[in-house]
Amino acid sequence: MAPTQEPRRRGRPGHDQDAVLAAAVRLFNDRGYDYTSMFDIAVSLGITKSSVYHHITGKEQLLQMAMNRALDGLFEAADEVRALDVPALERLEQLIRRSVLVLDERFEYVTVLLRVRGNTEVEQQALERRREFDGLVTELVKQAQAEGGVRPDVDPPTAARLLLGMVNSLTEWYRPRPGGAEALADAVTTLAFEGLRAERAPGD
Amino acid sequence: MAPTQEPRRRGRPGHDQDAVLAAAVRLFNDRGYDYTSMFDIAVSLGITKSSVYHHITGKEQLLQMAMNRALDGLFEAADEVRALDVPALERLEQLIRRSVLVLDERFEYVTVLLRVRGNTEVEQQALERRREFDGLVTELVKQAQAEGGVRPDVDPPTAARLLLGMVNSLTEWYRPRPGGAEALADAVTTLAFEGLRAERAPGD
Repeated sequence: MAPTQEPRRRGRPGHDQDAVLAAAVRLFNDRGYDYTSMFDIAVSLGITKSSVYHHITGKEQLLQMAMNRALDGLFEAADEVRALDVPALERLEQLIRRSVLVLDERFEYVTVLLRVRGNTEVEQQALERRREFDGLVTELVKQAQAEGGVRPDVDPPTAARLLLGMVNSLTEWYRPRPGGAEALADAVTTLAFEGLRAERAPGD
Repeated sequence: MAPTQEPRRRGRPGHDQDAVLAAAVRLFNDRGYDYTSMFDIAVSLGITKSSVYHHITGKEQLLQMAMNRALDGLFEAADEVRALDVPALERLEQLIRRSVLVLDERFEYVTVLLRVRGNTEVEQQALERRREFDGLVTELVKQAQAEGGVRPDVDPPTAARLLLGMVNSLTEWYRPRPGGAEALADAVTTLAFEGLRAERAPGD
């Protein structure tokens, strides 16, 4: 969104942090975190740099907030799925589906998260939380396999990484649009759980 | 590999270009293309910057050569698969399998390719070739669907992107090791074509 379309919130500090975060994330994704300054963020909002610093300690805090917004979405999805009283295969499928929906809803934040390489303490913490989420998915694959829901010839950590790799790769080409997320989640879960191969006709 | 383990090839220009390319690609992936200078590349090889310039016009040529090494591998795989006299589903499966093997063989080059965002003409050309490769995969999905090999409820361009997204995401966690590529290619094709869901027992 161009700065001129952005509502001005100069005098409303309660709203400023969200607006600053949204502007920062847009710049991080467009030109890269390293190439974005606090001054650039202020300019894109049409406010002064000191107004930005009124509620934000610096660029790294914005990075951390952005990554947490993505990670919190994923862990909330994991909590919701854990509460479902259904076989592990179905919980796994729900978690993959919801990961796609989180990616759609928090697209810019997830994109920031996935570009991080662990160069700082804050980035390392985010990578640690990503690994923890990968672990939850691996655990679900294992449980589903033990229950006979997932085929026995797959390695759970590899399957978890392939599933999440497919979801994460969406940031490379998908762009959120109304109604797009549900169709995309269907496509992902069909490919991942049913496979591309056509089912044999009965009697084949 | 540390510079001290690298054979010295100061007086052998025919070998220098490959050695410079390998060193450059390692640095591009470790610290980022923008943060790598021709001086850094020379230092990592233990040669002078002017020796590097003897066969390379500059950093952008190295980037182009690296990306082409990855892309050429993918297009060679596509050519080989096109020559197979088998149903489209099998050609598609072979192409996905071979893409995993190319990623394993040319890991550092593929990693460079996948991080490029199209900021320059050279990067745009590489993205154009990637789109062309995506198009070949989409075409194979379409053919396989027309032949009844791929399930009718998938959208070919989406399926192609999900397949290649899963393959490309391997650069995030897989590290080449002897024998690793075949097992990984099996895992990818099993998930993509058969799906994770366990097959029903006969009579179910």
